[in-house]
Amino acid sequence: MASSPDKAGHAAMGHFPVDHGEVLIGGIPVTRLARRVGQTPFYAYDRRLMTARVDQLRARLPQAIHLHYAIKANPMPAVVCHLAGMVDGLDVASLGELRVALDTGMAPTRISFAGPGKGDHELMAATAAGVMVSLESEGEMERLARIADETGIRPRVAVRVNPDFELKRSGMKMGGVPSPFGVDAERVPAMLRRMGETGLDFQGLHIYAGSQNLRPDAIVEAHELTLELACRLAAAAPAPVRWLNIGGGLGIPYFPGDAPLDPGPIGDHLAARLPAVKKNLPHAEIIMELGRYLVGEAGVYICRVIDRKVSKGRTFLVTDGGMHHHLAASGNLGQVVRRNYPVVIANRMGDAVQETVTVVGPLCTPLDRLADTIDAPRAIPGDLVLIYQSGAYGFSASPHGFLSHPAPVEVLV
Amino acid sequence: MASSPDKAGHAAMGHFPVDHGEVLIGGIPVTRLARRVGQTPFYAYDRRLMTARVDQLRARLPQAIHLHYAIKANPMPAVVCHLAGMVDGLDVASLGELRVALDTGMAPTRISFAGPGKGDHELMAATAAGVMVSLESEGEMERLARIADETGIRPRVAVRVNPDFELKRSGMKMGGVPSPFGVDAERVPAMLRRMGETGLDFQGLHIYAGSQNLRPDAIVEAHELTLELACRLAAAAPAPVRWLNIGGGLGIPYFPGDAPLDPGPIGDHLAARLPAVKKNLPHAEIIMELGRYLVGEAGVYICRVIDRKVSKGRTFLVTDGGMHHHLAASGNLGQVVRRNYPVVIANRMGDAVQETVTVVGPLCTPLDRLADTIDAPRAIPGDLVLIYQSGAYGFSASPHGFLSHPAPVEVLV
Repeated sequence: MASSPDKAGHAAMGHFPVDHGEVLIGGIPVTRLARRVGQTPFYAYDRRLMTARVDQLRARLPQAIHLHYAIKANPMPAVVCHLAGMVDGLDVASLGELRVALDTGMAPTRISFAGPGKGDHELMAATAAGVMVSLESEGEMERLARIADETGIRPRVAVRVNPDFELKRSGMKMGGVPSPFGVDAERVPAMLRRMGETGLDFQGLHIYAGSQNLRPDAIVEAHELTLELACRLAAAAPAPVRWLNIGGGLGIPYFPGDAPLDPGPIGDHLAARLPAVKKNLPHAEIIMELGRYLVGEAGVYICRVIDRKVSKGRTFLVTDGGMHHHLAASGNLGQVVRRNYPVVIANRMGDAVQETVTVVGPLCTPLDRLADTIDAPRAIPGDLVLIYQSGAYGFSASPHGFLSHPAPVEVLV
Repeated sequence: MASSPDKAGHAAMGHFPVDHGEVLIGGIPVTRLARRVGQTPFYAYDRRLMTARVDQLRARLPQAIHLHYAIKANPMPAVVCHLAGMVDGLDVASLGELRVALDTGMAPTRISFAGPGKGDHELMAATAAGVMVSLESEGEMERLARIADETGIRPRVAVRVNPDFELKRSGMKMGGVPSPFGVDAERVPAMLRRMGETGLDFQGLHIYAGSQNLRPDAIVEAHELTLELACRLAAAAPAPVRWLNIGGGLGIPYFPGDAPLDPGPIGDHLAARLPAVKKNLPHAEIIMELGRYLVGEAGVYICRVIDRKVSKGRTFLVTDGGMHHHLAASGNLGQVVRRNYPVVIANRMGDAVQETVTVVGPLCTPLDRLADTIDAPRAIPGDLVLIYQSGAYGFSASPHGFLSHPAPVEVLV
């Protein structure tokens, strides 16, 4: 099976079945889906895969754990609506995301707003909406307190803590270092005392140590330290902790050698620790906030081969898609060394490998590479290139305006 | 002069004068310009600096050299209109850019369209518009020949050559390696012979060896090899070479240690070589195609400080701007090791340096850093952070949708 990414050491992509040589998305053969969409390139998200992921995760976590969806991973309104019907809350990072979250009908009390650099207009909107504000600094607390005084509304707030530990071997380290995110743990008690003098309604804590992690043991260790830290900080709080966001960090396999994460040990650890936490924080709802883990594997990016060319012995497939649509696959969203996402010729899954090709886009820059020297069946103009693991930080995190090509389309099937 | 980037080893940014402690853009103090724009963040481009750059360059190049503007560097319509009045032609890389170029009123015969992966609809539009098509492969030539037959229009074409040499020490190497750009030099004669059998109107050659280069000697060497190669390939052409695009590659100083390029030696070399070229290619117009060099230094990005916070001894200025607006300044457009662009507190240029700060944006990712540990005067919320050298590949090359914050505004002053 030629264009299977497994050969290159990628994890198996069996969540999208193959039939008559074509990848199926939402049960639809890829060539038919492309005709229905009416254009390439496009992103397609499979709603059944999102549902299955939430169900699988719930089966492995204690029932008391609340699941929230972090919209930033994929803010397409149809995706957010679909997930809003399954999760216990939504987390937003901008006023734009807040609007999408409220549009789903999710109760404002189940929505939280985090992010450094929230403007006064964003704090005002969050206050008016009645959502929880995750405070990122003492300065932000004072600005929100002024808004509370002006409006006569009492904003529900949590303190985002910059923990004094890190989530080890994460894609993005968010703790244990000087950080724009949250308040250093050692300064939180003084901040909580000051909060008692304001008109802010303390609800709880938000502790987030890292993201895109594939090691259950690392996540378990971070959870252990997170729960310990929360119990310690609760002592200084002006009210009982009702809301404890322990973050997410669950990763998905992108690159050769990455294996899918097993959430079992994470659930087992939380189940073992919950009785003690309940004793210390009897009113606290424990929340896991997940973005990429819920949607990343449910999405693919599809573009079309426009040209085949050979240069100095190397074969290039030139497509109508590229880094302007999928910056992460080009390696340009945090990778130091470029590595391939799993990429296949989606309408030739039954053909034998015949050549080694490099897949590029239409941009006038050598950075515009979607796959570098992969083994594939022989593809010709009109064939469809598919990039797996593209449901998170794909469409929304890419520079669509680069070289003034049209933006891709998104569909949920 | 506190927030001068010179201290960090950046080239002097004297092209934007300072008055009463404020950077002037188009002669307007930055705080007044921010009020006039009506929001932060925004990009501001100074038309007088673009004019001065074209004038300076023309003074150093032989009169016979034609200057083209590569729209991809900054496709803002007002910028393209301004430059269209000064240069001899425009180069586009997509149908979107072609529309902007035609809107300026520039004659189609002065516009060329390059880029791998041009779709049939783009080749058709270029044919209908009557612009020059730079052919990137043999396959593209055959597709365009079919369009010529269908429409009865004879498209003007050039062959883009993947040269057998490189522009040494370039920001982006475009020659001497297997490449999606152009046709390997050794295959061009066969392609030109085949072209003679089609309905395509051969006009010339497009040879481009690299970009963002700060060494005149390297550019001179590339020009020498380019002119040699063009004379060699012309022998196989089905018609005289009327159009010879020798590319650009002139860089601007971004990082500590970068010195501005002196175009003097480049002009002297071309002046010395032109008589021999004219003898070999008597009908050829020699074109330098420049993007970044014409607009990069004329633009700045301006955002506002929202919060100051200290974490584990490091001071962060949190702004309303970030990598979603200015991906290049965050290091995420081709840099392997992140380095600072020149960044200042634009309304405190007269204040003494008081602290070392890291400037970040509102995104929930550690990648969102606009300046890492720079020396600056003490800035407070409301102050304006300015990033120099932002006129090229800034607005258009950034992922505006990332976290659903509003896009920045662009103004030409």
